[in-house]
Amino acid sequence: MKYPNNLEKTYKNPLTYKNRGMDLEEYLNESNEYYREIDKALIYKKPTPIGVAEVSYSQRGKVIERGFFKEPSTLDYNGLYRGKYIEYEAKVTKNKTSFPLANIHPHQIKHIESVLKHNGIVFLIIKINEIVYLLKGDDFISYIQNNSRKSIPYEFIKEYGYMIKYSYRPTLDYLKIIDEIYFKEETYEKIEKN
Amino acid sequence: MKYPNNLEKTYKNPLTYKNRGMDLEEYLNESNEYYREIDKALIYKKPTPIGVAEVSYSQRGKVIERGFFKEPSTLDYNGLYRGKYIEYEAKVTKNKTSFPLANIHPHQIKHIESVLKHNGIVFLIIKINEIVYLLKGDDFISYIQNNSRKSIPYEFIKEYGYMIKYSYRPTLDYLKIIDEIYFKEETYEKIEKN
Repeated sequence: MKYPNNLEKTYKNPLTYKNRGMDLEEYLNESNEYYREIDKALIYKKPTPIGVAEVSYSQRGKVIERGFFKEPSTLDYNGLYRGKYIEYEAKVTKNKTSFPLANIHPHQIKHIESVLKHNGIVFLIIKINEIVYLLKGDDFISYIQNNSRKSIPYEFIKEYGYMIKYSYRPTLDYLKIIDEIYFKEETYEKIEKN
Repeated sequence: MKYPNNLEKTYKNPLTYKNRGMDLEEYLNESNEYYREIDKALIYKKPTPIGVAEVSYSQRGKVIERGFFKEPSTLDYNGLYRGKYIEYEAKVTKNKTSFPLANIHPHQIKHIESVLKHNGIVFLIIKINEIVYLLKGDDFISYIQNNSRKSIPYEFIKEYGYMIKYSYRPTLDYLKIIDEIYFKEETYEKIEKN
């Protein structure tokens, strides 16, 4: 059976259309939900920190009448994978040539350094030029320490980052990359045993 | 130098007065802040999950005009200690004879089971009869699985829980107990090496 070229594309890759409408955060939430469903990892997006200024009481409970968003000092997502602590931040930039560092607060940069020091797994997920990359925390920190630029060039992200491809479920299988980077030995051992 | 008995007490134990005014959550936040200061652990209270119903925009940014508190499906505190994932919930009960299980949502109970399965460290911190206890996640789950009561008797908490004593800094040194329970071997190895 033959379709005109554009239709065929739609059939072959049903995600293409969907991808356009959804943003990175939704994809990651969907992926984390899937990881929990198949009991692979327990990773959640942390609630946005909020300062509550006024409350009232209704029959359904406490209602916030006035609040404001606070600046986060940790990263957006954290949890537990293969017995290890994992934490990351997800950011989209419309910039084509670099990722502006203004996207990551100074408190968060310090926090990334601390997580590294305490042997946690920490990274950024950056969507740039419609491609999603995983950039390890240590590569991110080493860039900052060795450069005075206020953005990370796309070239650096392409060289040091790991591309996360879209798939059906999970939409963004970033743990596959985590396996390769952080659990390579264990993965090999498992293969050898089988 | 001598003081009347009541004054002497105030001097000897300045925490007594302070204890009355502060609640468990503040103590734990203070302790976690101290642990971060001395670079011992990275443990934070998660922000309360909030549903934002209405926002407005002011010069200072987005303002929440109406919101509501959501039911949490994970525990209140989580983080990283000695390379391990750690998560816990803190609860105070005014009940003297038992800890009502209504304090922990069914989703949270499932979550505790999952964290155990994924080799994370998970526990409850319960304040009952003015004493603070750490109850391991597996003891908590095993109580629930073997009993149909809707509360945990104080006797059980006294037998299986670990008392956390008040000190100056950190106010509640619960990681000392975590060391004893989960890192005993490593702690011994360290002592032997020295």
